[in-house]
Amino acid sequence: MFQQALAQAATRVQTRLDAEFVRIGDQGPVAEGMAYASRGGKRLRGFLVLESARLHGVDPAQAEFAAASVECLHAYSLVHDDLPCMDDDDLRRGLPTVHRKWNDGIAVLVGDALQTLAFELLTRPEMTYDPAVRVDLLASLARASGIEGMVLGQAQDIAAESAGRPLTLDEITVLQANKTGALIRWSAEAGARLAGADPAALTQYSTALGLAFQIADDILDVEGDAEAAGKRLRKDEAAGKATFVSLLGLEGARARAQGLVEDAETALASYGAQAETLREAARFVISRTH
Amino acid sequence: MFQQALAQAATRVQTRLDAEFVRIGDQGPVAEGMAYASRGGKRLRGFLVLESARLHGVDPAQAEFAAASVECLHAYSLVHDDLPCMDDDDLRRGLPTVHRKWNDGIAVLVGDALQTLAFELLTRPEMTYDPAVRVDLLASLARASGIEGMVLGQAQDIAAESAGRPLTLDEITVLQANKTGALIRWSAEAGARLAGADPAALTQYSTALGLAFQIADDILDVEGDAEAAGKRLRKDEAAGKATFVSLLGLEGARARAQGLVEDAETALASYGAQAETLREAARFVISRTH
Repeated sequence: MFQQALAQAATRVQTRLDAEFVRIGDQGPVAEGMAYASRGGKRLRGFLVLESARLHGVDPAQAEFAAASVECLHAYSLVHDDLPCMDDDDLRRGLPTVHRKWNDGIAVLVGDALQTLAFELLTRPEMTYDPAVRVDLLASLARASGIEGMVLGQAQDIAAESAGRPLTLDEITVLQANKTGALIRWSAEAGARLAGADPAALTQYSTALGLAFQIADDILDVEGDAEAAGKRLRKDEAAGKATFVSLLGLEGARARAQGLVEDAETALASYGAQAETLREAARFVISRTH
Repeated sequence: MFQQALAQAATRVQTRLDAEFVRIGDQGPVAEGMAYASRGGKRLRGFLVLESARLHGVDPAQAEFAAASVECLHAYSLVHDDLPCMDDDDLRRGLPTVHRKWNDGIAVLVGDALQTLAFELLTRPEMTYDPAVRVDLLASLARASGIEGMVLGQAQDIAAESAGRPLTLDEITVLQANKTGALIRWSAEAGARLAGADPAALTQYSTALGLAFQIADDILDVEGDAEAAGKRLRKDEAAGKATFVSLLGLEGARARAQGLVEDAETALASYGAQAETLREAARFVISRTH
């Protein structure tokens, strides 16, 4: 059920993005790079948007604008993260990173314009006629992704490298809640926001999910297969960075992730059987192999 | 009158930005870099927002959110433009550029977060209670600054460098209308949008103003004093790039700019004497020495 919903979400997000890039037209390497960088990936964030929309009776043809938006935001962060002056990665989703395929300057602009497109998508009346709801999604995405959210997490990550000591468990939990957690939270809340409903249960769900996802990522970074992952692994270990695995041990990290998945499932109790796909998603993030 | 209005606008924009950075708090070098990069400058865009707001009876205490927004957007574009992989500049507004003061990675994140903050500022109810107006400003800023506006102009600029021939006058006019024109247009239209009025006259005014501004910039690049400008000059000549001066000659460029200023002044006829400060602004952009 989950795998099917994830695949459907991926198709819907890609169809929306394809339509956007057709509309933008042939504008040279930056527009090409935007399409290239926003292709592929698991589309977990887009899935969360569409699934929380479904829970609240929102038409997927409307919610897809929010799903495509968060995938553009996520893609922008990856393009900039992969730059030589940041993580310096050559491979992403099994393909050369944007700066490797074009160059660093193009990659900076591709990321910049993907961020802009993310916000633009949330202004569309096709998403919801109610401008107050659009502003709510815009404001919450800005807070989740800027210096109070994702970028803060990236800044904390950079600061950790020059701190002269590994991060504590509390510090790394805060860092990840910002760096990857904020956008996952926004995604899961988006359907409730679109319906004008209270997102509290989805906030609780996605806070646990986001942390479980990151712990699983740290486990995969140690145990995973770079070819299946489509990106370089064991970077954290090589850089001597603290991870959930280095702090909790492999077994401890697995137990912590399992506990979080249970928390995530429990948070959705009020949604009943309707939320089974989201519960499956939580179980998936800690069982995935890439 | 203009100089006083410009100085007042600069103070108002800075006060708003200061309040934002106090609210954001001490979040390390990225937050510091955001405050650093958004300080100073002529604040022409912020002035245009506040002046067009005044023409439409909008309280400056509300319009300042849009003024601060466009200045954040502009600052983000400068921080990324100055990167070694882009224009590679060491000096901006008379101070070390962000990547020189910190490093390239911090500069990427500073620009990213300034773009996010620009959009976030336009979501504030303190700007206007009407969410439809906020969405209108958000959507128009996104179009003006992304792959259909400013970033497209930057991409066209990069493409021109590897085109193997200098740009024609038509090509450079389109490039500049995107690269610098779109944001200047948005700024001048913002006051009308805030009041829910037709921005057509201001669109006409600022289209002429934006082009005059760029021609004046090209003239200054040839004739100007790097110390007064606070940035490196004669880059275009060194790079063998076409400019309005190389295409029209110094006298031809001056005459074209003068004609555009007259167009800009005429466009404001319906506003009468009220718009004198904006007319002065047009005369200023071609007479400035830095």
